[in-house]
Amino acid sequence: MNKKINLLLFSGDFDKIYAALLIANGARDMGMEVSIFFAFWGLLVVRDPEKLTGEGKSAYEKMFGAMTPKGPEDLGLSRMNMMGMGKSMMLEMMKDDNAPSLQRLLDGARKNKVKFYGCKLSTDVMGFKKEEMLPELEIVDVKAYIEDAVNSDMQLFI
Amino acid sequence: MNKKINLLLFSGDFDKIYAALLIANGARDMGMEVSIFFAFWGLLVVRDPEKLTGEGKSAYEKMFGAMTPKGPEDLGLSRMNMMGMGKSMMLEMMKDDNAPSLQRLLDGARKNKVKFYGCKLSTDVMGFKKEEMLPELEIVDVKAYIEDAVNSDMQLFI
Amino acid sequence: MNKKINLLLFSGDFDKIYAALLIANGARDMGMEVSIFFAFWGLLVVRDPEKLTGEGKSAYEKMFGAMTPKGPEDLGLSRMNMMGMGKSMMLEMMKDDNAPSLQRLLDGARKNKVKFYGCKLSTDVMGFKKEEMLPELEIVDVKAYIEDAVNSDMQLFI
Repeated sequence: MNKKINLLLFSGDFDKIYAALLIANGARDMGMEVSIFFAFWGLLVVRDPEKLTGEGKSAYEKMFGAMTPKGPEDLGLSRMNMMGMGKSMMLEMMKDDNAPSLQRLLDGARKNKVKFYGCKLSTDVMGFKKEEMLPELEIVDVKAYIEDAVNSDMQLFI
Repeated sequence: MNKKINLLLFSGDFDKIYAALLIANGARDMGMEVSIFFAFWGLLVVRDPEKLTGEGKSAYEKMFGAMTPKGPEDLGLSRMNMMGMGKSMMLEMMKDDNAPSLQRLLDGARKNKVKFYGCKLSTDVMGFKKEEMLPELEIVDVKAYIEDAVNSDMQLFI
Repeated sequence: MNKKINLLLFSGDFDKIYAALLIANGARDMGMEVSIFFAFWGLLVVRDPEKLTGEGKSAYEKMFGAMTPKGPEDLGLSRMNMMGMGKSMMLEMMKDDNAPSLQRLLDGARKNKVKFYGCKLSTDVMGFKKEEMLPELEIVDVKAYIEDAVNSDMQLFI
């Protein structure tokens, strides 16, 4: 199908990011063009856990980097997280049904050429450095997002 | 109006589900086609409280079924819920203004032929059985959702 | 660009409202038409902090008015708010990067003629009086929202 989907991924919740990546991968499978604009908490899923650094950051930015989840599997649920207990239960239930892991969905999206954009303002404010992020992530401003979104056949704010 | 609206109802919050059903019923009243894809926590509103069962479920699925809200009126607010106190206050305020109850909005959507889809992966993972759900709910996969959504004039992720 | 964007602002979270206003201002800058429909918690950002009143309100409505944030800068984060600590940290980080304040984005949207709609049912239920709100806010029902949204090129539920 010759269609284009744009997702604004604002949330840093495991379950919402999971939903976003399911949609992105599904749409790519169906031959659609897909872009995701990672903003605010959504950026937590496209940091490379192996490359986090404190260099060149303010005290607040360092603290922020240290307090936030380190990668996809480190994120909590939007509800019933219960200090991670609900999350563990959910992961077990997912395994029982052979549901793909969040990491696998993320890897799939990268391999399937889902276009990854990162919000410039958010990375600036949160102090995330280009080299801490997945290499596919292209940092753009909000106008580039709007341009891409408004020319898509479907837009979601997740 | 010859238009089509697609809502992805991901949230299990009383207030967000209320908003989704208000939009769905309003659009049906205006002669539009409306479909709702219930996924993840959104499925909590389309379980039939009279038909919940533990049969054929894993221990986790049973626990999950028991810990989650039993029906529309059992759901909490997305903020200021305060262990249900804020929710009670909101319900009183709604009654004072003759705002329809969530149950009435849900009944209206069913009667008005809003198309109800349920996310297959979510029901599998959460262990929700077909016979526990409202009979109108048609279980479909994420691609069926995308196909329906991308061919609509408006899509929301709620 | 001759395009039209419609945002349903449901959330009362500082960060989500910030994102909504960034998009609204960006799109206006690009020459697009933008409308925001403030509903439920989203109405908290368009009350005029100088004009809040208890007159003509029920006991619940008075209590609700007193318990809710008084204006844009009084709103909390959707996550890591930590009783306001995370929020303060975020504000410092924003200042370090010369990111505009929420108040400035709101003022910009008003000056740039972003169209402000308020949800009639929400104001009725919450007991918010017309004279407590920003004067630009036009109170309309859900069908007016749907009509505006479905005729836009892009719709988001925030």
